[in-house]
Amino acid sequence: MSPAETFSAPHRRFNPLSGAWTLVSPNRAKRPWSGQVEDIPKEVQHSYDANCYLCAGNTRVSGTVNPDYKGPYVFENDHAALTAPNGISQSSGPADPKDLFRGEVANGHCQVICYSEDHSLTMAEMEEEQIQQIITTWIKLHRGYEDSFQVVQLFENKGAINGCSNPHPHGQVWASDHIPTDIQVEHMNQRAYFSKNETPLLLDYVHQELSKQDRLVCVNKDWIALVPYWASWPFEILIAPRTHQAKMQHLSPKMQRTLAALLKRITVKYDNLFKTSFPYSMGWHQAPNKSTSNSAPSDEDAWLLHGHFYPPLLRSSTIKKFMVGYELLAEVQRDMTPEQAAEMLRSCSDIHYTQCSS
Amino acid sequence: MSPAETFSAPHRRFNPLSGAWTLVSPNRAKRPWSGQVEDIPKEVQHSYDANCYLCAGNTRVSGTVNPDYKGPYVFENDHAALTAPNGISQSSGPADPKDLFRGEVANGHCQVICYSEDHSLTMAEMEEEQIQQIITTWIKLHRGYEDSFQVVQLFENKGAINGCSNPHPHGQVWASDHIPTDIQVEHMNQRAYFSKNETPLLLDYVHQELSKQDRLVCVNKDWIALVPYWASWPFEILIAPRTHQAKMQHLSPKMQRTLAALLKRITVKYDNLFKTSFPYSMGWHQAPNKSTSNSAPSDEDAWLLHGHFYPPLLRSSTIKKFMVGYELLAEVQRDMTPEQAAEMLRSCSDIHYTQCSS
Ligand SMILES: O=P(O)(O)O[C@H]1O[C@H](CO)[C@@H](O)[C@H](O)[C@H]1O
Ligand SMILES: O=P(O)(O)O[C@H]1O[C@H](CO)[C@@H](O)[C@H](O)[C@H]1O
Repeated sequence: MSPAETFSAPHRRFNPLSGAWTLVSPNRAKRPWSGQVEDIPKEVQHSYDANCYLCAGNTRVSGTVNPDYKGPYVFENDHAALTAPNGISQSSGPADPKDLFRGEVANGHCQVICYSEDHSLTMAEMEEEQIQQIITTWIKLHRGYEDSFQVVQLFENKGAINGCSNPHPHGQVWASDHIPTDIQVEHMNQRAYFSKNETPLLLDYVHQELSKQDRLVCVNKDWIALVPYWASWPFEILIAPRTHQAKMQHLSPKMQRTLAALLKRITVKYDNLFKTSFPYSMGWHQAPNKSTSNSAPSDEDAWLLHGHFYPPLLRSSTIKKFMVGYELLAEVQRDMTPEQAAEMLRSCSDIHYTQCSS
Repeated sequence: MSPAETFSAPHRRFNPLSGAWTLVSPNRAKRPWSGQVEDIPKEVQHSYDANCYLCAGNTRVSGTVNPDYKGPYVFENDHAALTAPNGISQSSGPADPKDLFRGEVANGHCQVICYSEDHSLTMAEMEEEQIQQIITTWIKLHRGYEDSFQVVQLFENKGAINGCSNPHPHGQVWASDHIPTDIQVEHMNQRAYFSKNETPLLLDYVHQELSKQDRLVCVNKDWIALVPYWASWPFEILIAPRTHQAKMQHLSPKMQRTLAALLKRITVKYDNLFKTSFPYSMGWHQAPNKSTSNSAPSDEDAWLLHGHFYPPLLRSSTIKKFMVGYELLAEVQRDMTPEQAAEMLRSCSDIHYTQCSS
């Protein structure tokens, strides 16, 4: 263990991807909680719900009827946050000389990805082959947008407590003609590291974590899942390949299979941690697509494809970490160390709690 | 109205204080919501609660008995996230050469500020004189820490939905021996602007907003409250003085009085918006205290003292904006324009809804 990991009193850790620090207060782990406790709906989900606008055969808000699909199903988001140019002139006029009112048009495309026809089936309860089908769908989406949009943001909001508007397992893709803020920051930091060290930042990090071991959650031949040294969320996980891969669409069929296996293990461990369908936001970052203005030849060399899991729970299925006050105004703060969180996740079983006899 | 304000389709706006962009999707304002609806406890709060660890005369977790206080009461946080050096050697050892595991000790001091002895009295329902007493308390705290800590972060988490752990109206102060991430970013951006333009960024901004008018919420001779051009949260408000003030402890008695009047109007309007005790995180930013390593003579010239209100509600007292998925992974997104939000707040009465006969 490196000396930096022996901190037992308040300390800060630096996130080289985002450039932000996290305040770690291990001494707060036992703080009593008398604030809000979430109401977790205990309803059993069925494989089909007549009122679900994502289930096969049902009618959506737009009037479109979903086909009788099996496996992943992708359709246009009826309430897209990013849309194609609509013909209305959106010129922001001459820029204000001091740049205090900078605005720009944002074009893009938003789609919804139902994971399967089964209204009740989360990733944690899927077979690996079904998760592979989702990965295949993600890759097809990336390929389809490669020439038209700079960034293709895949994500899943899971759990009502986490802002998910429909329990039918689904994710989203928001493709944009610009590089969104957080990806731009990761982009600049990976570029700067690469130009200094001539190796990708995250690949160096992955190799060091593999030897240090104390933040690992699970690992296979191709992939690593860990609670990063600088994690903000209590049980945050970073997924990365063990070899240089800049984009999801470059993954070999074998790496797609081993990724499905890793995602299965992570989501099962998450569900087992508090014996609940674990809420999270999950998403993928990778090298942006080429554009004349914003890319360098070495961008793909500097980037490592990676996934982030940001789960809101802190102590139980009903007590979450509130990112409020100090976190919104000054710096993100956590109450246990990333090493403690990794240890808790590592010791969770790889068999889903609903399938255990005891 | 400047051309940049006529955007009716998705667009992005730049925040010159934080360097981040916000994605604005005015087309999503009418999106139906079938996700989580918050349970708002409708219990009436009484002026004294025997189980409240903040009420006068009651015993806290630490065993300390609160005195029989009147008006604001400040005490040591029993579960401090930042503490004084504890004698344990916290050296992080030789830095890792590639800086992927950067950690540092963080020292500080955390206190709780009860707004008054009355368990039920929020700022919106206080007399202006009572709010003035809170401002006096804030200023005393700033003065007390001036020589010992670099940043003194004042904040209030209001509302159970917003992570507040006790309904007794109170705020907090976390003082630190370092500049936390978000304040460091504001620090650098204000410095850079000042060295280019020789005027403070926020003061230039305030003057432009006063003439544009369409994002103003309320204004008096000394202060302005507005929904910033780049607001992330639906009903976010920025408070700033109309003259150059770098630190709260420099405010004249008159400016303290007019600030109390402004805070009263803002909090009343907030409560009136959805006829509920409006939840928010609120806090103050100002020029950091001097340290040999991290300050320049012009820092106070570049900084403008300002307050941020970040309220989570979106459409009603029970439907909040979830900052999840795309927001956590790519860029903050909002569903109505800041001008629409400002208009809604402006048209709210200055008389608290509980005091109206109709
Ligand atoms: O300090 P409190 O009220 O116990 O806790 C609240 O505010 C803190 C500072 O913003 C946060 O870290 C906690 O997540 C939140 O629940
Ligand atoms: O797109 P949905 O599922 O309707 O909405 C959810 O995800 C979006 C993207 O992260 C967020 O902007 C919303 O606040 C959230 O409720």
